[in-house]
Amino acid sequence: MHVLIIGAAGMIGRKFAEKIALTGRVGQRNVDVLTLADIVMPDVASDFAGERRAIAADLSLAGTAKALVADQPDVIVHLAAIVSGEAEADLEKGYRINLDGTRALFDAIRHIDGYVPRVVYASSLAVFGAPFPDKIPDDFHLTPLTSYGAQKAMGELMLDDYSRRGLLDGVGIRFPTICIRPGKPNKAASSFFSGILREPLNGTEAVLPVDENVRHWHASPRAAVGFIEQAAVMDTTLLGNRRSLTMPGVSATVGDQIKALHDIAGPDVVRLIRHEPNPDIAAIVAGWPRNFEVKRAHALGFRAEASFYDIIKVYIEDELEVDKS
Amino acid sequence: MHVLIIGAAGMIGRKFAEKIALTGRVGQRNVDVLTLADIVMPDVASDFAGERRAIAADLSLAGTAKALVADQPDVIVHLAAIVSGEAEADLEKGYRINLDGTRALFDAIRHIDGYVPRVVYASSLAVFGAPFPDKIPDDFHLTPLTSYGAQKAMGELMLDDYSRRGLLDGVGIRFPTICIRPGKPNKAASSFFSGILREPLNGTEAVLPVDENVRHWHASPRAAVGFIEQAAVMDTTLLGNRRSLTMPGVSATVGDQIKALHDIAGPDVVRLIRHEPNPDIAAIVAGWPRNFEVKRAHALGFRAEASFYDIIKVYIEDELEVDKS
Repeated sequence: MHVLIIGAAGMIGRKFAEKIALTGRVGQRNVDVLTLADIVMPDVASDFAGERRAIAADLSLAGTAKALVADQPDVIVHLAAIVSGEAEADLEKGYRINLDGTRALFDAIRHIDGYVPRVVYASSLAVFGAPFPDKIPDDFHLTPLTSYGAQKAMGELMLDDYSRRGLLDGVGIRFPTICIRPGKPNKAASSFFSGILREPLNGTEAVLPVDENVRHWHASPRAAVGFIEQAAVMDTTLLGNRRSLTMPGVSATVGDQIKALHDIAGPDVVRLIRHEPNPDIAAIVAGWPRNFEVKRAHALGFRAEASFYDIIKVYIEDELEVDKS
Repeated sequence: MHVLIIGAAGMIGRKFAEKIALTGRVGQRNVDVLTLADIVMPDVASDFAGERRAIAADLSLAGTAKALVADQPDVIVHLAAIVSGEAEADLEKGYRINLDGTRALFDAIRHIDGYVPRVVYASSLAVFGAPFPDKIPDDFHLTPLTSYGAQKAMGELMLDDYSRRGLLDGVGIRFPTICIRPGKPNKAASSFFSGILREPLNGTEAVLPVDENVRHWHASPRAAVGFIEQAAVMDTTLLGNRRSLTMPGVSATVGDQIKALHDIAGPDVVRLIRHEPNPDIAAIVAGWPRNFEVKRAHALGFRAEASFYDIIKVYIEDELEVDKS
């Protein structure tokens, strides 16, 4: 089959492409053609045995979506988005990329008669906003408190509507915060969740801007790739008209994270975490979800790690041991 | 103050304009300027003492929204929409009018520096889709099962987002099914809810296409006008970031409706209702909400009728007795 990844230059898109290149498959299905698209030219996954293409294009510009779907890929993984901070800073850009880009993609699909591809839509926990119950259920109402969350929720509604009409076959996946992100720290308020583990594991200092009792919902990059793969091949008749699913994750406090780091890497590594309270970051993080009751995705076979120990081990296996080989 | 009604040629828009013309006020606030806009030229509410304007324009066309808000009305009541059946039959028209039209309005407001009008946004129970609990709570999740419902829910998300950013001061009101609608029957699946009362009260036969145990959520046109008036002047700081409210109504079965008609108008009038089951209509109506627990709107002072007796009396007072005068 033909898989198109839009947003393939991002961390998750790249990892998903690498996995396809390695295995030649998504789930049990062989991949013959792999098209990677992003606003910057994505890596072409050069070790892929099938036909591979790379495209640099802006999904929100006229004609881009039409060109991307012209060959009728069987599976479209739509990861392209302006992230939370930028969507909040630039309202027009956020709505243009996150809403109009998504709509352009769905409409380009709709305009091809008889073409009903699987569309895996990357949504986010940001569709939910405080106040929250202790464990957020699958049917918690959409109450975003950021423009990014509003745009992602609007995309979920379109995904449901277009799927209900038989115009595409959508699965929305609300990603947990991905931890441990490889690479450099970024300016996201959530950056420290990865940083306090990644930097010490690489022998450098990290700053912890919040209390150790802050609780949040995490899954590894490897789990995130598994979610996409599952969503790409699952039986969508099981979803009914509610196409978006909160993904499983590990509910852990920062203290839980640090204890797992201590037990795996020892006290010297933990001492590289410097506590430096930042009230701005603490205030942002206070509005974030802490825990979910993920019945639907569990029942459908989606799996994340069981503990933060596993999340750290995934990072060591997938990033550090690979780097050293 | 200056009140702009968009969708002023519709039944509710017209009644709201008539009430302003009669009283010169919205709530306790004097209205100096009343602008009525619709895609067809609205009635100019000729008995209004203040300055009155009427505009025929398509909100979804470039420039219309900008022209409508150029004078910076203090209150904008946005009732313009493609209704459920048409939005389902014509996907592009529904998204263009219901989503793009709403967005064009919000963006036109956003582009005027320092202008933060009250925006009353007409939403709908169609933002909710089955399966339902017996009583649908205020925080039930957005699960539309029609394109109309999806478009209205997307508008709610934008209303929340733009209000949170301080770009406008929004209140979304999810109208119950309005009963008894004056005038002729229309092709909406819900038309019979009004028809089985209105036609017999006017001495003509009406068709009932569903069982008498069908339950639904109703309020009168007078109550609907009251909702808008309340939303136009209420203290929105009480809403927090969740700007849309399910409106109060009367949960009644068709049997309750008929019993009220019998008690008010007598058995001969009731005999004008002809039972003629229509499985298509029955199937549509089976997916509709039956009852709500409307805590937020009640606490904020929104009020509908207490029973179907009151709903029928409102029709007699506002339509039949007026017509005879």
